[in-house]
Amino acid sequence: MTGRDGGADLVPIEPSPVVILVRPQLAENIGGVARAMGNGGLFHLRLVAPRDGWPQERAWRMSSGADRILDAATVHATVVDAVADLHRVFATCPRPRHIIKPVLTARGAATELHAIGARGLRAGILFGPERAGLDNDDIACADSLIRYDLNPGFMSLNLSQAVMILGYEWYIARAPEAPPRQLQTNETRIANKAELENFMAHLTRACDESGFLKNPQKRPGMIRNLRHFFQRGEVTAQELNTLHGVISELARGPKPG
Amino acid sequence: MTGRDGGADLVPIEPSPVVILVRPQLAENIGGVARAMGNGGLFHLRLVAPRDGWPQERAWRMSSGADRILDAATVHATVVDAVADLHRVFATCPRPRHIIKPVLTARGAATELHAIGARGLRAGILFGPERAGLDNDDIACADSLIRYDLNPGFMSLNLSQAVMILGYEWYIARAPEAPPRQLQTNETRIANKAELENFMAHLTRACDESGFLKNPQKRPGMIRNLRHFFQRGEVTAQELNTLHGVISELARGPKPG
Repeated sequence: MTGRDGGADLVPIEPSPVVILVRPQLAENIGGVARAMGNGGLFHLRLVAPRDGWPQERAWRMSSGADRILDAATVHATVVDAVADLHRVFATCPRPRHIIKPVLTARGAATELHAIGARGLRAGILFGPERAGLDNDDIACADSLIRYDLNPGFMSLNLSQAVMILGYEWYIARAPEAPPRQLQTNETRIANKAELENFMAHLTRACDESGFLKNPQKRPGMIRNLRHFFQRGEVTAQELNTLHGVISELARGPKPG
Repeated sequence: MTGRDGGADLVPIEPSPVVILVRPQLAENIGGVARAMGNGGLFHLRLVAPRDGWPQERAWRMSSGADRILDAATVHATVVDAVADLHRVFATCPRPRHIIKPVLTARGAATELHAIGARGLRAGILFGPERAGLDNDDIACADSLIRYDLNPGFMSLNLSQAVMILGYEWYIARAPEAPPRQLQTNETRIANKAELENFMAHLTRACDESGFLKNPQKRPGMIRNLRHFFQRGEVTAQELNTLHGVISELARGPKPG
């Protein structure tokens, strides 16, 4: 719409959620995403296993001056690694199938993202690869889904457009006249994704050792189901401790006597 | 986000406003615009003096299957020609300068566009060329401006992103639970842009003949100011008739006696 504005004023509007591109294919699209993030006041970009490696000069060329966003982007081998320090993860998902997770519109998600930030927690949004979208394992790492309210007769949404819509809604929802958010009333700390992952590893190991996951065909789906279950809401650090204890105790087998 | 869906279901959600790209430069962007229009349920595309001519195969390649929108696109030599059959024209304009026209957000414009459609009137939205944006003469053809609520620190908005945001808001605003719109209470007919243009030509001619526009440096700006004035609200066909009469009468000079 307008020409290059430089990126001098490209300062994140904190607490700014993390945009996570999962297995992005085209560097041009990564550049377009950075540009859209700049438009929406987003700043934090993470790339999970970009197909053509990173950095890619074409991304900078397509970003229209959003260099600082690209300069600060980090690369991660897996989604699990990319979300480790986050407390809430959203997945953009045009056609959720048989998944029991809360589904939000982009507008609803934007409000939610500000509410999460206001509580001092960090949120991230997963965007899938250009053609295939997020797979079931990616979605299993998310707490909630975001489904855009767009023409169901033409669902082919460009990656940078998907980020643009979210950034646009996020920017609008920043309005200071939003009602003050309820803060946590006690000192409960929400577990981050690394702590949850640690618990999932413990649970999986225990299930493996117990023989519960012995069918190799069914194992991935069962693990995913467990992951979905434990992602369903925020888990506190205390709750995780308790769950760890439960698993350890159960794994020990029946008490003699 | 997802792969190609084909364009079989690419049916306009009528009354769908007209997207008018003014002097677009890159065929890729025109294709990206068509794709974004498909996402938002928009269908009618007009091109004013596309830089590289039309049709351009690259546009079809970038549209992700929104072929029907591109197939139906029309080309126009001027903005005036492109808006001739419309009743209301909006101009996307990131930084309105010294222009007295109503300024709407994308969200406000979407509501307005549905209200216009509900009254049986046709609306169009002007989008400027990639680098320069709309010029003053383009904007003079519009009744209202649309200014997106986005990060003022990074205004470089891609053309297809600008169309995407409007299409997204337009699609959401279609909601049937919107309050019923006030219909026109009498049989007044809103003049279309061709009728208004005809009046402007009459007025300009009269002003030229009267010597009012004799300063060649000031002439374009004065005509633009007149145009802005008469664009400010909807003009009815009856009002235009009256105005024509006023001009004709004044042009005749002072009555003898």
